[in-house]
Amino acid sequence: MSLLDSTIKSIYPQDSESRDRAKERLDQLAMPHWALGDLMDLAIDLAGMTRSVKPVVSGKAIVTMAGDHGVAAEGVSKFPQEVTPQMVYNFVNGGAGINALARQAGAEVVVVDMGVAADMTELVENGKIINKKIGLGTNNIAQGAAMSMANAIRSVESGIEVVNELADSVDVFGTGDMGIGNTTPSTAIAAVITGRSVEELTGRGTGLDDAQLAHKQRVIKQILECNKPDPKNGLDILAKIGGFEIGGIAGLILGAAAQRKPIVVDGFISTAGALIAIAIEPFVRDYIVCAHRSMEPGHQYMQEKIGCRPLLDLNLRLGEGTGAALAMNLVEAAVAVLTEVATFEEAAVAGADK
Amino acid sequence: MSLLDSTIKSIYPQDSESRDRAKERLDQLAMPHWALGDLMDLAIDLAGMTRSVKPVVSGKAIVTMAGDHGVAAEGVSKFPQEVTPQMVYNFVNGGAGINALARQAGAEVVVVDMGVAADMTELVENGKIINKKIGLGTNNIAQGAAMSMANAIRSVESGIEVVNELADSVDVFGTGDMGIGNTTPSTAIAAVITGRSVEELTGRGTGLDDAQLAHKQRVIKQILECNKPDPKNGLDILAKIGGFEIGGIAGLILGAAAQRKPIVVDGFISTAGALIAIAIEPFVRDYIVCAHRSMEPGHQYMQEKIGCRPLLDLNLRLGEGTGAALAMNLVEAAVAVLTEVATFEEAAVAGADK
Repeated sequence: MSLLDSTIKSIYPQDSESRDRAKERLDQLAMPHWALGDLMDLAIDLAGMTRSVKPVVSGKAIVTMAGDHGVAAEGVSKFPQEVTPQMVYNFVNGGAGINALARQAGAEVVVVDMGVAADMTELVENGKIINKKIGLGTNNIAQGAAMSMANAIRSVESGIEVVNELADSVDVFGTGDMGIGNTTPSTAIAAVITGRSVEELTGRGTGLDDAQLAHKQRVIKQILECNKPDPKNGLDILAKIGGFEIGGIAGLILGAAAQRKPIVVDGFISTAGALIAIAIEPFVRDYIVCAHRSMEPGHQYMQEKIGCRPLLDLNLRLGEGTGAALAMNLVEAAVAVLTEVATFEEAAVAGADK
Repeated sequence: MSLLDSTIKSIYPQDSESRDRAKERLDQLAMPHWALGDLMDLAIDLAGMTRSVKPVVSGKAIVTMAGDHGVAAEGVSKFPQEVTPQMVYNFVNGGAGINALARQAGAEVVVVDMGVAADMTELVENGKIINKKIGLGTNNIAQGAAMSMANAIRSVESGIEVVNELADSVDVFGTGDMGIGNTTPSTAIAAVITGRSVEELTGRGTGLDDAQLAHKQRVIKQILECNKPDPKNGLDILAKIGGFEIGGIAGLILGAAAQRKPIVVDGFISTAGALIAIAIEPFVRDYIVCAHRSMEPGHQYMQEKIGCRPLLDLNLRLGEGTGAALAMNLVEAAVAVLTEVATFEEAAVAGADK
C-alpha cells in the first residue's frame, strides 16, 4: 500500500468520548457558562483530536513549504520569481516575518524545498532546510497541467513524510507557504472546489492594481478552461492547477490527521492545500484549526466550505505561516483553560441561580 | 496638586516622530507592503506610546480590580454577591481563567481589592492582594449615587497608584475586573457616554433569560433617571453610576498613559472604565489597546466611541482581564515584527515592480 493510501486509512474522526469529557469539565469551570467562548470550543476540538482531556501542545512547529510556479510567467505577481529562493535564505537566517512570530509563539520553523526554481543544495547540505524538491517550479498552468499525477502524489506524500519525521517532537503543526505567484493556483483551486466565480475569489495578492487584477482574473479563467479539473478529485485538481508546495501542505494536513495531531492552517495558500486535503479525505477536517481570515477576498468562501470559523482577523496577507504562528498562542490558551482552570467545586465558588 | 491632576498634566499624545520612524522601517520589511496588517498598525502605536522604535514589552501585568455593587440587590445577576470575594481567593490560588491565560502569555496577575463587600484582611496581610478598599461595595445606584465625589477621585487615584508602584518592572499593563453585578453600572455608563439606548446596550451578563434581561433594562433606565449624570464629566458619571473597580480601571488607564506605557483594555467592564478615563482626559486614548470584542452587545458601540478596533473576537464574556491576557501575545508579536524582521536590503530580497 502506498504511503498516501496507508495514511488515509489511518485518519478517523475526532473521538467523541474525549470531546464529551472535555465539555463536562468546561461546563463546571468557575465562571459564567461558556464565558471563554471560542477558546472552549477549540479546547473540545483539541481533546477530540488528541483523544485526551489534557492535550499536550508544548512542541510546536510551523512547516513552511516553498515552491515556484510556471504561471509566474503570465505576470500575475508584482515580485520576480527569484524572491522565492531569496526568502528561503531569509527564513534560514531568521529574518522573515514567520521567524519573528514563531519565536514569539515558541514554535520552531521548518523550511521545506518542495520545488523552488533554484539550486538550494547548499542549504540542504548544511541541514538548514528539508529537501523534497520535485522540480524547478511547476509548468505554466495557463497552458497545461501543473505537474504529472505521479508528482502530485509525490508532493502530498512529501508533506506526510515531513510530519512523520517530526512527529516525535511536535505536538501541534502549523502550515506555511512561500512561492511567487501562488495566489493564482490557490484562487483557481478555490474556484473549482467552492464553485464561486473568479471575480468573487480573486484578490490583489502581493499588491496588484486594477488593471493587473483584471489580467490575473483572465489568467485564472484561462487556467480553468484549459485544465478542466474534476471538482471531486483532489489529486486531479492538484496535478492540473496546483503547486508543489500546495500539495506539500495538503500532505502536512493528511499526515497530522493520521497522527491525531492538530494542524493550524495559515492563510489563503494553506487553505487551498486544506481544500485539496479534504477532497482527498474529508475526515481531515476534524484536525484543522483555521488560524485567521486573510485579506484575500476568496479566503472566507474557502473557510465556509471547510466549515471552520477562523480564530483571528488581523488583515494579514503574508503567508509563510505567520497567521498560524499567531494562532498557536490561542491553541495553548485553549488547553490552559481546559487543564488549569478550577471548577466551582474545586475553587469553592458559589454557582449561578438556577 | 492632587495625584489625579498631576497625572492628567503628564499625559501627552503619542510621539509622531517615533511613529514615523517605525512606519519607515515597516514600509521596508521584506514582504508585500503592509502584509502583516493590523500588527503593523499596532507596532506604530506602540512606538508612538513608548517613544521608541524598539518598544520594550517584556514586563507584562494584568491588574484585576475587584469591587462589589449595591445594585446587585436589584437581582441583576445570576450569581450571589459572595462570589466576588470567592473569586478573589480563586485568583490568589491561581485557579481562575485569568491565571491560566496570563501564565500562557507570560504576564503577572496583580489583584486589587477596590471595594469587595467582605473582609479581605488575610489576603492583604499575606501580601497576596493590594489593598485599596474604599468601602464594602457601592451604594445601590437604582436608588441614588454609587459613591461620593471624594471616593470617585479616590478610586481613580488608587488605580494610578497601582500603576506607579508597578511601573519599574511592568512595560505593558492589562486591565481586568471582578464584581458581581458590574455589567449593570457598565451598561449605564455606556448609555450616558455613547448616547445609545438601554435596549441596544444591555446584554445577558453572566447568563440572564428574557424576563431577567427585561428586568435589567428597567433597572438601568431607573439608574439613569434617578442619577442624571453629566455626559461630559467622567468623575460625575463615576460617582453617580460607577463602581470602585471601574474607577480603579480608569485610574490604571490614566496612570499608564502618564507613564507612556501601553494599556491593554479587556472587555465590557474595562471599556466602561476606559470611557470614564477618556472623559477625564481624552489623550489617554492614545495609550489604549482594545483587546477584544466581547459578547455583550453594547461593547461594540463603546469601542466605536473610543475609535478602537479590537484585536480579537472570540465570543468572550468573562472579564477578569482574560481578553487582555490573550492580546498581550499580539502586542509582543507586533513588537517582534517591528524589531526582528529584516528589510529587503538587509535580507537581500528583490523588491516589487514599481
